This record gives sequence, C-alpha cells and structure tokens, in this order.
Amino acid sequence: MTRTNRQWLLASRPDGEVKVENFAWREQAVPEPRDGEFLLRTIYLSLDPTNRAWMNAADTYLPAIPLGEVMRGIGIGIVEESRHPGFSAGDLVQGLPGWQTYALSDGTGYSKLPPAPVPLEAHFALLGHIGLTAHYGLLEIGEPKQGETLVVSAAAGAVGSLVGQIGKLKGCRVVGIAGGEKKCAWIRDDLRFDAAIDYRNENVFESLRKHCPQGIDIYFDNVGGPILDAVLPLINNHARIPLCGMISQYNSTRPSPGPSNLAMLIIRRARMQGFIILDHLANAAPAVRDLVTWYAEGKLRYRTEMVEGIENAPEALLKLFSGQNTGKLLVKVSGEP
Amino acid sequence: MTRTNRQWLLASRPDGEVKVENFAWREQAVPEPRDGEFLLRTIYLSLDPTNRAWMNAADTYLPAIPLGEVMRGIGIGIVEESRHPGFSAGDLVQGLPGWQTYALSDGTGYSKLPPAPVPLEAHFALLGHIGLTAHYGLLEIGEPKQGETLVVSAAAGAVGSLVGQIGKLKGCRVVGIAGGEKKCAWIRDDLRFDAAIDYRNENVFESLRKHCPQGIDIYFDNVGGPILDAVLPLINNHARIPLCGMISQYNSTRPSPGPSNLAMLIIRRARMQGFIILDHLANAAPAVRDLVTWYAEGKLRYRTEMVEGIENAPEALLKLFSGQNTGKLLVKVSGEP
Repeated sequence: MTRTNRQWLLASRPDGEVKVENFAWREQAVPEPRDGEFLLRTIYLSLDPTNRAWMNAADTYLPAIPLGEVMRGIGIGIVEESRHPGFSAGDLVQGLPGWQTYALSDGTGYSKLPPAPVPLEAHFALLGHIGLTAHYGLLEIGEPKQGETLVVSAAAGAVGSLVGQIGKLKGCRVVGIAGGEKKCAWIRDDLRFDAAIDYRNENVFESLRKHCPQGIDIYFDNVGGPILDAVLPLINNHARIPLCGMISQYNSTRPSPGPSNLAMLIIRRARMQGFIILDHLANAAPAVRDLVTWYAEGKLRYRTEMVEGIENAPEALLKLFSGQNTGKLLVKVSGEP
Repeated sequence: MTRTNRQWLLASRPDGEVKVENFAWREQAVPEPRDGEFLLRTIYLSLDPTNRAWMNAADTYLPAIPLGEVMRGIGIGIVEESRHPGFSAGDLVQGLPGWQTYALSDGTGYSKLPPAPVPLEAHFALLGHIGLTAHYGLLEIGEPKQGETLVVSAAAGAVGSLVGQIGKLKGCRVVGIAGGEKKCAWIRDDLRFDAAIDYRNENVFESLRKHCPQGIDIYFDNVGGPILDAVLPLINNHARIPLCGMISQYNSTRPSPGPSNLAMLIIRRARMQGFIILDHLANAAPAVRDLVTWYAEGKLRYRTEMVEGIENAPEALLKLFSGQNTGKLLVKVSGEP
C-alpha cells in the first residue's frame, strides 16, 4: 500500500498580496529514507509572517524558495522511520518540513521537542520560534527594567502577546498596538496590558503620547512602517528597539519609505537591532525553562487558531496579512500520537 | 575702558537652508563675572553640522536656542578673570561659549583642555568633540575587527576623515564616500583609504558593490538619507551602523522618507545605534591618549579650514551644507595666548 504525500508547491511569486493561486497542489508517493535520513509525518505547521518573505525572489536570512519546490514551512512532526543515528521512530521533532504531509530529512535544522509539560501545540504558541523570539528579543535586545515603558506592535499576535506579558513580568508599563477592538480588549482585559491602541481607529502617535506619559524605553517592532515612525519621536534616551518583523512591508510591490524620524535614534542615543531567532536556538534551554515556568504559574497565556487540514494552508496564510486571525495560527496536518 | 563683546544672535529660525539673515549682530559691554563665574575670551569657534540642528524650534539632545539669544557654539577660550574655584585666569578651556567674543560661565559644560603636544586648533580637529566622536563611534559602537570592511560617509569631513584613518589602524578595508573628486583624492591618496566614492558623480550603490566585495561590516553614518539606503542591501550579518549625524536631513523643511531597506537590519541581524559624544566626555582620557599617540606617530592626520573673524561665522556655517569646506571648519575669534 503506497501512502500519499500531499504537498503545496510554490507555483509563482506573489506580486504584492499573496494569493491562493501562488501555490500548486501535488500528490506523490511518500518517499523512503536512505542512510542518514529519517521520514517525518507532519503534525502541525506554523503559519508566520516570515512565510511571506520567503516567497520572494530575493534571498532573506534563508535562500529564496525555488519555484516548483515544496513551500517552506516550520512544523512539528513525528519520526516514522529513521536511518539517522540521532533520531528514532516516535521522536517528536520541530524543524522545516515544509507544506507537506511527509518530509525526508538528514536532520539539518531539526531538533527534538524539549520535554515540557505543555500541550503539543504550545511548542509553537508558547515555546519554539515564537516564544524564543519573544524571550530573546525582549530580554536580550530590549533589556527591560522595572518601571520602564514597553510598546509592542502586532500585540495580539503570537509573538507580541508573549512580549507584552513578559514585559509585565519584568515590571514594565506595557502598551500594545493591535488592529480592532476585539484584539485590543483581549490584550488589555485578559492579558493585563496597561493600555491597548487600535491602530485602525486611533491616531497612533496621539494615543502613544497619552498612554506613555514617561516616554517609550523599548519598542518591540513587529510591523515597521508608519507605526515605527509614530514611535520614534516619543522614545527616551537610550531606548532600545528590537526589530523582529516588518509585516507592513512584506506585501509591498515597491520599496516603501522608511521612518522619516530616524534621526531620533541619534538625539536619543537609541539602538535599533534586528535579530533572527534561528541564530539562538542552540542556547535556548534557559529561555524554554523560563517560558514553561511562567506558563505553569499562570503568568503567561497563549491562544491558538487551528486550521484543519493541509489543503487549507494557503487560505489560512492570507489571514495573517488581513489581521483576521486571533492567536497563533497553526495548521493541523495529522493527528497527535 | 569698556571692552566690547561682539555677538551673533539667533534672529530667526531657518526655513530649509540656513541663511545669513537668520543671525543678528549685537555689540555690548563685556560683562563682569560674579561669584562662582569666570569670564572667557573666545579663541576658536567650531562650526559643525549640529549647529544647524540647534537652530530649529524643536529641542534636540540640547534644548532649542530661544530666538534673540546668542547662537550656541562649541569653542575654545582662555579664562581672563575667574571668581570660580575650579578655573583660574590663563586656563585654556573648551565648552559652549556661543558665537561671541566673550562669555560668562558658571563652569557648566566646560573642561580644561587636556595637556597634549598638539597645536591649539587640534583640540577641535583631532581631539575634542570631533576626535572623540570618531573614536567612540567607531571603536565602541562600530567594534571594528581586522579584515572587516568599513564604509564611512562625509568621509572627507572632520569626523569622517578620522574614522577612516582609525579604521585603517584597526586593519579594516576602508571605503569613504565624499562629494567631489578633490575630496575623494584626499582621502584615497593622502589618507590611504582603500577606495573613495564620489556621491555626486557615481551611483553609490554600484560603487559600494564594487569596492566592498566582501560586503559591509560597519557603516559609520554621518549623513542619513539615500546613502544609508544604498548601504543597507550590502551589509553583512551582524553589521554595526553607528549613527553619528544626518546632515542630509538637517535643512529639510518637511519630513524626508527614511530608508526603505530597513528590513535588512532584521535579515542581517544588524544593529543601528545613535550616540551623542557629550555623554562620554567624562571618560575620554584613554581616547585622547590614543588620538595623541597616533598623531605623534604620524598615523592620524587632519586638515583645518580657518575662517578669520567672528563676523564671518554665519557665512562660514553655510559652507558645511554646500560641502565647500575642506577639513575641520573653525572660526578664529581672537589670538592664541
């Protein structure tokens, strides 16, 4: 009995907004692992803004995806067969299986899930690249101190919602920027941010001025664009700006102008720093410990939005850019063991 | 016999380019120091891009200059009378006397010139805020390593020319960007930069690509604007961008768009960091020692352009923005002791 590997290929590069038509469906036989390889069954795929950036012709921090290849995607899976000395059948692993139900790997970029008393989906909503991005970006680059003011954009998103909660744990005044009253209510009322700004219905600069009476010490930037420009005039001396993402730019067909207030970085002796969490996965154990501990103590919460079936992955990705999803967006590809 | 204090006041704020008409001339009696004050005779005034930024209505890292007050300016002078316990007649000091031939001070912001075997003008062309800016910005923020590629803009300017030479001392490949063949020839042939790019007659991006075959590890930014945008696509992983100035923006009447390539900071895990040298003057002794040593060894050179007479200060300031001056621009206000 031949099993089927169901795949989404990158068929064309988006011109502006990503469309379902940029992907092509393919079914083929599940391959057999050779020496040094294992076969993984995908359980969950993580949908992230970075998926969009990968679809462009230009290399990013990873090479561009060649047209006609399986769409790149972060996933959790279970090893079904292994001829790799480091992995055994039954291992739960995370890495880049891509948008397919089965993946072969020589182990590059894969790691076993750390043992943690959390649901499997939490390895993407709380731990994994999401939680580590929030933890590293805020604590190592943002360097929050008790009493400082932290502003985070895409604050109801997977990373942003953790950043704000960790900021509260560190004693910061936390102001979140999100799109729509529902998201704002969640971060303000459920996650206990000090204030929420609805960028769709408020003047972000004026609202920031109101909610950050002591100025802004840290701006955790997930979006770039005009919101960064609204933040810059309000930063304090020695402010830190971890640059995590620029979702506002990813669908642009032409270069969009950057912040006109960049000279504020000089006036305020401020630092803006980009990072890619892949660089820091090897030293992630202490961060995982923090996140698991805070979660167990009820101090850190997450939400997931689960999309059923790999066939729905392209449509689900679109949600990220229209701001429709609430919580960490995941695709359930197959059942948990 | 009443001596005359000759002053330039800030009469109006520039709308775009600074004009001589923004200043007003006043003559009044030289004041007498009261208890806790000293009277200084200005010897040299330093003209810097920051003078322009100070003229705006908005505060920068220093408060805006009120209209009708003496124009703010960095200067070297000699104490003529002192009723201040920390300063004595005959002391050579640097600080902010402003554009006037005599200044009263309670000592705030003044320091005695460090003893150094250099000409008096070198306290502005090699040491002082200029040399310390180059030293701190490149070494503390830029963190140059042997074999790395350093790009510096306004490379024939007072700060930029020192930055490039210090970069060479640290083993970097140094590429300078300057306006006009004369300036380019100076930094390439006399200061021994590895390459010079004439931004007025070359495509900066293409020339950078040619002269930085290993990419750019450090960009010491004195200008902001389009040159920053041309640099960003070429930065290497973990690049550092000390933000020293944005002279391209200072005469803008409206916000000018920032770099559209800012997402490169994420992709390349790069850091962009502003600084103000005033924060670091208290710990400057080791840097002064370095600069004096390198100068004595013939490894660090500077040029000055000396304007005679405080009456010519406004016109001289204009040169900075048209790129006419070669070397550190100074006004000789009175004779050296």
